[in-house]
Amino acid sequence: MKIILDAMGGDNAPLEIVKGGLAGGRRWGADIVFTGDESAIREALCACGHGEVPAGVEIAATSQTVDMCDDPATVFRRKKDTSMGVGLTMLREGGGDAFVSAGSTGALLTGATLITKRIHGIRRAAMAPVIPTTTGQAVLIDCGANAECTPEYLVQFAYLGDFYARQVLGLKSPRVGLLNIGAEDSKGTDLQKQTLARLREAAAAGHMNFIGNIEAKEAIKGGCDVIVTDGFSGNILLKSMEGVGSFAGTALKKMFKKNLLTKLAALAVMPGLNEFKGRLDPNKVGGTAFIGISKPVIKAHGASNAEAIENAVGQAAAFARSGLIEKIEENIDLMKIEQ
Amino acid sequence: MKIILDAMGGDNAPLEIVKGGLAGGRRWGADIVFTGDESAIREALCACGHGEVPAGVEIAATSQTVDMCDDPATVFRRKKDTSMGVGLTMLREGGGDAFVSAGSTGALLTGATLITKRIHGIRRAAMAPVIPTTTGQAVLIDCGANAECTPEYLVQFAYLGDFYARQVLGLKSPRVGLLNIGAEDSKGTDLQKQTLARLREAAAAGHMNFIGNIEAKEAIKGGCDVIVTDGFSGNILLKSMEGVGSFAGTALKKMFKKNLLTKLAALAVMPGLNEFKGRLDPNKVGGTAFIGISKPVIKAHGASNAEAIENAVGQAAAFARSGLIEKIEENIDLMKIEQ
Repeated sequence: MKIILDAMGGDNAPLEIVKGGLAGGRRWGADIVFTGDESAIREALCACGHGEVPAGVEIAATSQTVDMCDDPATVFRRKKDTSMGVGLTMLREGGGDAFVSAGSTGALLTGATLITKRIHGIRRAAMAPVIPTTTGQAVLIDCGANAECTPEYLVQFAYLGDFYARQVLGLKSPRVGLLNIGAEDSKGTDLQKQTLARLREAAAAGHMNFIGNIEAKEAIKGGCDVIVTDGFSGNILLKSMEGVGSFAGTALKKMFKKNLLTKLAALAVMPGLNEFKGRLDPNKVGGTAFIGISKPVIKAHGASNAEAIENAVGQAAAFARSGLIEKIEENIDLMKIEQ
Repeated sequence: MKIILDAMGGDNAPLEIVKGGLAGGRRWGADIVFTGDESAIREALCACGHGEVPAGVEIAATSQTVDMCDDPATVFRRKKDTSMGVGLTMLREGGGDAFVSAGSTGALLTGATLITKRIHGIRRAAMAPVIPTTTGQAVLIDCGANAECTPEYLVQFAYLGDFYARQVLGLKSPRVGLLNIGAEDSKGTDLQKQTLARLREAAAAGHMNFIGNIEAKEAIKGGCDVIVTDGFSGNILLKSMEGVGSFAGTALKKMFKKNLLTKLAALAVMPGLNEFKGRLDPNKVGGTAFIGISKPVIKAHGASNAEAIENAVGQAAAFARSGLIEKIEENIDLMKIEQ
């Protein structure tokens, strides 16, 4: 198992990336290839106590970096030697089993599509984070890669999310729900109504455990294992969760700081609070899988620290070992619907 | 000031509606007209200690009720004498200054549009709850009345929300934001891009304090006072907030129940916790205003108790006193955009 890591992507590159990559490689039994500026990577290795490049680690030297201000649509044509572009090319050519980057989401998505390419027959790759719910977790697909969608895209997302939940999360029969503004069949726009009909057919044919429409509230309460939606609504759901999380955090902090008694109370519930915060912490979750690309690509949070990168490496290795891409390729005929 | 109240709508009708209506009438200095089954209303008045119909209260007797299973599109044609339909007709004909119902949202919206009618020039009425944010509150418009929208609808929602924030919430120069999946102008679908351009023009002409695109997370953190969006995304945002609120509530409860120490801790922070819960409690907020209808219509939560109805009556009275509808009528020319 060899994971390619964009050493230059994210707010804390390259030190935290290198630190997390080394830890992840050890923990998950994977070799690591760092792409990026060689001297900066060597310096970071040094800071981690490695005067030389250690065993199981390689450097693929590049001279450029994708910046946050670069236009995703043109950056790989303008800059031929970026840590992200070179990593995605290596991945395509078999120089590694998965690629992880904490760099620009838009550039990574464009690069994955243009350089590493989609699985043949897949219309659009989707971003599919695993989000916490009251009772466990759920795959949210898509969460922002495709603002505008057709019923065919959504049907494909449903299969992609279903296979991800089976192969990577180990669920036997994931409950797939279509995000909507009510549970009734008549709810939503034409996009939801047409997708609902297609997914009901898939369920009737025994291809999927489709449970119908689901409201955001019920989905977050744990009402399904795969939440299927267009990238616009998925992003609103995800960012709303983050917003309320931050809102609740601020309110709780204020509440516990009120007086001596509440400060003592805070000590008593600290372990529980930390456990709850941990469930919502993107550093613990790792990253967001791009599903539909012909090789595993993981987007780590831009603010990733070493722990987040370590977890993203684990997620990338699990994705690569899961057989997910083969499973999608075998079942691609199910995902073709007439326009 | 006279508020018409649908005594038969909602899970706790008619007792809690009558109780809340009486309290609201006293508290906000308004006369109350209850529409619905006369004997049921009299019985509820009796249970509130009124053997006779008290001063400032009237009953408009009706023989039918809009049920949750009734098709909103046809119910007012099939049932001519419902508590909701009669109330909306009274409102149109000047028999009261505002109408409050905790009944079916879809029926109330259809009835308000078909019976009470939209303001001339307004394309679609919107549902605009005031939601809590980290720093205060914001008007969310639309939150579910219109799943499918055009740029013109959204431009109108922006003005409607802006005027509501000025006239009813008393803000001098509300910050109006367009809900989107990123702050950059290039984000979102054609709907957002075209709306953004129109609202920038409105801002340039000095008609509105438009701050551009806003992400759900930033909106919930308090980044704007009016969140403009289509009813689909608005509903996802609102229901996500409710979902995470319930999620956090469950997690906190579990945390505080762990052992004797955490139970004592719960006592110490109870006032703060209750204050936080109160900010998110729909019973404290009152209801959701329908904006764009020619008279004030307020949808109270289906699960409304007396306190919720009391607050909804206050909100209805504030809406009726605000001059909002006149303000919209005066400025209707600003809201007409060419297709």
